[in-house]
Amino acid sequence: VAPMVTERYDPDYKMDHKYRGLALIFSHEHFDNAKLTRRVETDIDNKNLTEELKKLDFSVQLYKDLYHKDVMKTIRKTADMNHKDHDCILIAVLTHGECDFVYARDTYYRVDDIWNAFTADNCPTLAGKPKLFLVQANQGKLRDAGYQMAKQTQTDSDSNASYRIPIYADFAITFCTIPNYCSWSDSIKGSWFIYSLCQELSANGKQYDLLMLLTFVAQRVAVDFETYEEGFKQIVCTMSTLTRTVRFADR
Amino acid sequence: VAPMVTERYDPDYKMDHKYRGLALIFSHEHFDNAKLTRRVETDIDNKNLTEELKKLDFSVQLYKDLYHKDVMKTIRKTADMNHKDHDCILIAVLTHGECDFVYARDTYYRVDDIWNAFTADNCPTLAGKPKLFLVQANQGKLRDAGYQMAKQTQTDSDSNASYRIPIYADFAITFCTIPNYCSWSDSIKGSWFIYSLCQELSANGKQYDLLMLLTFVAQRVAVDFETYEEGFKQIVCTMSTLTRTVRFADR
Repeated sequence: VAPMVTERYDPDYKMDHKYRGLALIFSHEHFDNAKLTRRVETDIDNKNLTEELKKLDFSVQLYKDLYHKDVMKTIRKTADMNHKDHDCILIAVLTHGECDFVYARDTYYRVDDIWNAFTADNCPTLAGKPKLFLVQANQGKLRDAGYQMAKQTQTDSDSNASYRIPIYADFAITFCTIPNYCSWSDSIKGSWFIYSLCQELSANGKQYDLLMLLTFVAQRVAVDFETYEEGFKQIVCTMSTLTRTVRFADR
Repeated sequence: VAPMVTERYDPDYKMDHKYRGLALIFSHEHFDNAKLTRRVETDIDNKNLTEELKKLDFSVQLYKDLYHKDVMKTIRKTADMNHKDHDCILIAVLTHGECDFVYARDTYYRVDDIWNAFTADNCPTLAGKPKLFLVQANQGKLRDAGYQMAKQTQTDSDSNASYRIPIYADFAITFCTIPNYCSWSDSIKGSWFIYSLCQELSANGKQYDLLMLLTFVAQRVAVDFETYEEGFKQIVCTMSTLTRTVRFADR
């Protein structure tokens, strides 16, 4: 049993706890496996993301180049904490990956190990609160050749005192790209996804609800970026089991 | 190259074409495989869904108990049509399934065969328009035991005359449950997902944007329903690559 943080039919998550909550960033630049290139863009991503998340009142913790056992130790420690005074949690993973796997410094692991630690039964003090995940990692080797759009002449129940929720409710997981496709980055701006996310959070982060923000992040990545030589494109993908709207309004 | 149906940075999809567009419902009650139970709830789902989609001005086509080759023939024919006067497309699949597969009358098939037919390169007249999919099917055998909540004392770019988009942009795919979990239905109301979707469309369909509507559908399913004996729960999951907001306002 978890405390009922929102009334049964509230349209919005309660976002006025004592604290906004933790934001963990697991950032990987160097890898033991020589086949994995150094991620030079991760420093600028870390900087941008930390700055924007602090503006939204998150308490940001940056972890660089952790070994897999230390990633999981940090995840378990965080899931075991008492988050009762927190609105929500956000976890970002910036690394190499393929499909359902991402790389720590020494080895790959299933990225869903991260969110499975925060289901309502595993982390009761976050039950009924938004649990937000950002994954900046290739999901495979396929590349999106894009599609050209050009202007043309226009032609055309019971009691409300107690209730139960599914354990996987209240998650939003955003991948920088869809399964099997790769993602891109820019040596100055950082990865397209984190750069666009930070631009959107800076412009509208306290104004729009989260799913609308993420829609406009997808628009920025889809429309504004393509690779120089081949013109490859990238589409951001969000999986949501949220049951209310998330807003990071001023506290 | 596809006609630019929305300006490059429009926040909303253009929803004032001559027609709203097609809504295809592939509904399965009977299966050749004797291990697959008859889906008695599908008739009420068909009726509710048809009614609500018509209210939102969709041109609804209901296909019952098709063989796999006829499902795919219908999909290909629809993808080959000229949708230039349509706002969007919606396809609902109501059947049995497991993980990434769903059952036609005679055999199972990959559910992503359905949306892959409508990528921007495969279906240019829907490029840059919302492509919406609803999947009412078990995704596996796991069952969500739920979690109790109880009240307690409160403690970059160039010209705008032409632009390119990723081919997988502008999709929203809603599954009645998350991967590996099963879904439920009620003998009178129909499946929890379609019933809740229809309730939400009826209440707020012309008012809220689509991702907000789907958030409240997830809330209805998560909070209002559980199995009688064991108290199992279900969570609706939406995957979005939308790049603008979708609104079904009056035309």
